Formats: sequence, C-alpha cells, structure tokens
Amino acid sequence: MKVGGKHTRSIWLEPDGATVGTIDQTLLPHRYATIGLTTLDDAARAISTMQLRGAPLIGAAAAYGVCLALRADASDEMLERAYATLIKTRPTAINLKWALDEMIAAVRNRPRGERVAAAYRRAAEICDEDVAINQAIGRHGLKLIEDIAANKKPAEPVNVLTHCNAGWLATVDVGTATAPIYTAHDKGMKLHVWVDETRPRNQGASLTAWELGQHGVPHTVVADNTGGHLMQHGMVDLVITGTDRVTARGDVCNKIGTYLKALAAKDNGVPFYIGAPSPSIDFTVSDGIAEIPIEQRGAEEQSTMTGRTADGRIETVTVIPDGSAVANYGFDVTPARLVTGFVTERGVLSATREGLAKAFPERVNGVRAPAGSRR
Amino acid sequence: MKVGGKHTRSIWLEPDGATVGTIDQTLLPHRYATIGLTTLDDAARAISTMQLRGAPLIGAAAAYGVCLALRADASDEMLERAYATLIKTRPTAINLKWALDEMIAAVRNRPRGERVAAAYRRAAEICDEDVAINQAIGRHGLKLIEDIAANKKPAEPVNVLTHCNAGWLATVDVGTATAPIYTAHDKGMKLHVWVDETRPRNQGASLTAWELGQHGVPHTVVADNTGGHLMQHGMVDLVITGTDRVTARGDVCNKIGTYLKALAAKDNGVPFYIGAPSPSIDFTVSDGIAEIPIEQRGAEEQSTMTGRTADGRIETVTVIPDGSAVANYGFDVTPARLVTGFVTERGVLSATREGLAKAFPERVNGVRAPAGSRR
Repeated sequence: MKVGGKHTRSIWLEPDGATVGTIDQTLLPHRYATIGLTTLDDAARAISTMQLRGAPLIGAAAAYGVCLALRADASDEMLERAYATLIKTRPTAINLKWALDEMIAAVRNRPRGERVAAAYRRAAEICDEDVAINQAIGRHGLKLIEDIAANKKPAEPVNVLTHCNAGWLATVDVGTATAPIYTAHDKGMKLHVWVDETRPRNQGASLTAWELGQHGVPHTVVADNTGGHLMQHGMVDLVITGTDRVTARGDVCNKIGTYLKALAAKDNGVPFYIGAPSPSIDFTVSDGIAEIPIEQRGAEEQSTMTGRTADGRIETVTVIPDGSAVANYGFDVTPARLVTGFVTERGVLSATREGLAKAFPERVNGVRAPAGSRR
Repeated sequence: MKVGGKHTRSIWLEPDGATVGTIDQTLLPHRYATIGLTTLDDAARAISTMQLRGAPLIGAAAAYGVCLALRADASDEMLERAYATLIKTRPTAINLKWALDEMIAAVRNRPRGERVAAAYRRAAEICDEDVAINQAIGRHGLKLIEDIAANKKPAEPVNVLTHCNAGWLATVDVGTATAPIYTAHDKGMKLHVWVDETRPRNQGASLTAWELGQHGVPHTVVADNTGGHLMQHGMVDLVITGTDRVTARGDVCNKIGTYLKALAAKDNGVPFYIGAPSPSIDFTVSDGIAEIPIEQRGAEEQSTMTGRTADGRIETVTVIPDGSAVANYGFDVTPARLVTGFVTERGVLSATREGLAKAFPERVNGVRAPAGSRR
C-alpha cells in the first residue's frame, strides 16, 4: 500500500540483491524509518524487538533471515543455527515455524553453491504468496462491502470498525482485515473506518490509523470503550478484524477486546467478520476458550504509554499509581456463535466446522503447518 | 477513606472555618496535593478544570462555592451571581443544579447577617447527606459480596470488576460503586478488584487504583479490553459500576464502555450491579438510548495520554498519527435488561420501572431535583 504517495511493501529486497529492507514499526506513527537487515542477527533482532510484527510478516522476515545466514555461510551447521535462532524470536507466531520449515525444505538437498540463490527465491515466493492470499481476501470481502453500500444512500460511506492492526504492516502487503477496505477504497467506494485504539500496545492508533492515513482512507480513532455506543446508534455497518488463530469449529483467538466488540455486534445486529488467511486456521484445536492458553505479556505495556511530546521527542510515561498491580492478557477468544463469517482466500465461509472444513479439506486431518494451503 | 493511613474526605472545611480544602485530582495518581478555595472564582475554577469531579462532589463544591461568595458579599445580587457562575461550570452534572437550589433555599429569606453561617451549615449537611447515602449503599452491597463469599473457599478473594471512578474521590467519601467494596474490606473480607483503565481519561488507572491502593484494597489495573476474557475464565464474581443517570425503566447512562462490560457479564452469567444513589435516578426519562444525548468531549483526551516520565515530570504525549481524526464519546447507555440490580441507599432494587418506583415513590411524578430523597 502507499506511504507518502509511493507504493511500499512491509519487507523488500534492496537493489544490492542481498540486503533486506523493512520498516521500523516501533517508531510509528511518529517517525517513518526503514532499516536494512544484512545478517541473521539483524533479522532475529528485528523480529524479537518487534521492529516488525504480525504473523505473516514474521514468517517472511524469518525466511529472509535464513537467506542472510546462508550468505555468510551456506553450511548445514549454519542452516541449523539459523533455524534455532529464528524459532526462538516469537515462540507463539504460527507462521514462523511454517516459514522456517519451508526454507529448510527449499535448500537442504542442494549443493552449497546453489543454496543462497534458492533461499532468496523461496523467500520471495513466500512474500508473493502472502500478498496473493490477502488480495483474494480483499476480492471476497469487497462483495460484503458492496452489498452494504447497495442499501445505503450514494453519498453515505460504509462504516467499518476494526480492532488492533491486521493491516498491511502485519503482512507483506494489503493486510487481512484491511484487505476488503483497501480493495473497496481503491475501487472508488466511499468508506469510513472506526479504528479501535487497542490498548495496551495501541496498534490501532499507532499502526492501523497510520496506514489508513497514508493510503488516504478516511478514518477516526476511538477508545476501545466506544464501539458498543457506535453500534447502538447505527454508526457501524460492518466489523472486521484479523485473527491469530481460528479453531476447527470457528472460535477466534485475536487481540484482547475482540470478544467485547463481537458481543456488541451481535446485540445490535451488526455483521462481524474475520479476515482469515487459511494459515491461521488450526484444525487441531476445537474449543478456543478451553484449549488455547492466553499469554500474559509484560506489565510495562499496561503501566506505560509511549507517544510524542510537544517538542517532538518520543517519550514513555507511567500511567498507574506506584504500587498498583497490572495484568496484561494479550488475546481473547470470540466464540464461533458470535462470528458472522470468515473472509478467506477461498471465499466467505460460515463460522462452523463444516464451513471451514469444506473449503480447506486438505488441512482437516490434523495438519498444522499451513504450507499446502498457502500455495 | 484513607490517604497515607489517615482518614480523609474529598472536600472539607479548614480549621479557619472558612477556607474549603480539596484534593487537586488532576495531579493524581502521581502527586497528592491539596488546595484551599477561598473565593467563588476558586470554587468555579476547581470544578471547571476538573481539579474535583464526580457528580456528588461537584454538588458539594458548588454548595461551598456559594458560601465563599456570601463571605465576600451577602447580598441577593451576589447570591444570583454565584448561582449563575457555578451552574455554568459543568452543565451536565445532575447534582450541581440541585445543590445550588438547596443553597438558595437555605439562605434566601434570612437576614444578610445570618446568611454566611446558614450557608456553611447547609453545605456541611449536603456533604454529610452524601456520605450517609454512600454508607447505606455500602451496607446493602455488602450482602451481595457476603453471599458470593459464602459460595467460595475461605482463602479465595471475591473478585470485583469496576469501570471508571465511582469511588470516594467522585463523592464526599466512601463512593458509590466502591461503597460495598470498602464496606466489605473494612469488615475484614478478602477482596480483589479488577480496575478498568478507562480510556480516554484513565479515571480507573489514575483515581480508582490510587484510592484502592491508599485504602489497602488489593487490585489490578487492566486495559478496558480485558474484562470479557476475565469473565470467560471465571475470574470475575461481580461487576459494579457507578452511573451518571438511571432512567425510570432502569437504563443506565455511565462512562463509555460500561455497556461492553454489561454484555460480557450477561454472556458469562456474572452479576452486573450499579451503585446508584437516588439522586442519579431521573424519572423523567425512560428509553436511555433514544432519549439521552451523549456528549462528545475534547479530541485531545483521546489523541494524548498524560503520565509521569522516568525523571518524575508529568508529561502529555500524542499517541495518534498527525492527520488522523478522533472521536471521544463520553458515555454510553446500558439497557436495563443487562443490569442485575441497583444498589441504592434504600436497598438493592430490580432494574425495572416497578423496582425503582416502589423504592422512591416520592420521586416518580416527574420531580427531577433529587432534594427529597437525599435527606
């Protein structure tokens, strides 16, 4: 999507054919800075410090991390070291292991002299495959937005609410939850997006608002508390969020607070969709609330807030009293009964075991690695 | 309640018998500073800049504002000027007009020489009446907590979730939503409070967490997104919030986000109560969603966050991209069907027209000023 009017991906190969370019997302929305990764350690650090984040982008960055490792040393030992180093960077990211397994498969049985080129080829494919999935999600989701627009007056925008960042910054390009939004916007449709701030890390206010603004999509940032009121007053036509993991029966693990918006959507008859690339569907899990452990993240995310001071410095301030405890649950689970449907690369699916299994039959038999469906 | 181990109210008369002491709440939780109000303008400024806030405390401060005005000049002209000045400070605070009307009634027909003493007497009564109401709410709410505790193991705390600040800082003492909590804690019961941060103004993280900590009540601050997850996992036994206005049929206008917690409570079978002093019941309104206009507050509350820097300065930082719009709806309405009951000074009432009307028959006939019921 666009940054400063110019089309940009979240990860790319620099003109030297070796250096991997990416955006330092920890500085957004206050500073736009790109960084060049030239070593395995650069790639590992970029992932672990969240300079880049989002499951699909983490997968792509890990793939390029293997390329950078092999450039220094194309041995089996280095391949193993690269795998061991990168797998530890974000243990819960589902695409990370998949991408690393793909890279191993792509280079293992090749002569050392061919490994670097083969690795860069496969990493580029992984990126392009992600974009193709998201473009397909955009095409299928576009129909949902067109149907809503057909029932509104021509001058009225379709109001979409989203939570957290499942935008192009979390993927290689286009995004998952944002794919229908960008697709509709690029077709010239009138849209307006309500962006949940998404405490404690503020990915909505920091990242989703920034990328929508750069691409020219009208949007308004609201406190996470606001969505219910907006839906009660007919100000939301459609909710769409991303997902970290979808269970076989359609429960949705996503950023903490998603469940509250799903409840409000149900209570007010607002359609609630999930932009779900098939790699996020985990057919080995069924009851999301009982089976998915929810990680607690660092207390400082909740006890502080980072932003820009009046004189342009980036500063972190403490927002709780000394001595108060904090808890920081990263995700929650939205039961399938609250989900209107999944917008996947193979169409809009019902939030049922049958709906998901019928569209992805090759995935159903306990195959957790998402390789097959990503091609 | 206690500050630094010493019992404190949120507003008091200084030993000189004239100066009105209060806490500068805009500095909490980072600095505890008291201020002395000696003129009408001091009182008006303290209310309008939110150095003190919360409907009952605003009423008490306005009452003392009339005292301070009369001290300078006990004429009818000054009485009118005080009324006109104070009524403008927070136009939507329901207790403000009531307290001013009470003060006018207390002094109007007296000789000028007696007005100052009569005013201070009535202002002190208004404060004591507020405390008495809140203590009664505490006694009635205590039973709810005792019933929950009776079904838990002795070592397990009762987990209460609250939103925003309906604590003693919003009243003269004890608080409304917090009254059952403090009453149970002071009786030696084991409690733990989940404190919603309450963006955008953070009254939960700044004020509720601070006052619970000062009084020694175990608590944990969480992002507003978290409550649904906690309730799904049996980590909340009871939700209790305050209210800005209760309609005749039991709809609840309260801080934005209350509705989302009520939905989650309903979905998980968690009791959802409102600490509701009778002055907050407005029998002239029925359908809260259709009839209560929701004010939009200043954009800067959402686009910024204020906190303490590592070196102890209080700093405000911007947390959204340049060019992004924000919206800041202050309140939402929770329909009566989601409310388990109202904890009032006359007992725990069902969230129905009958439940409210039976307990406060003298209020039903369109009498909006809460005078009668506050005595």
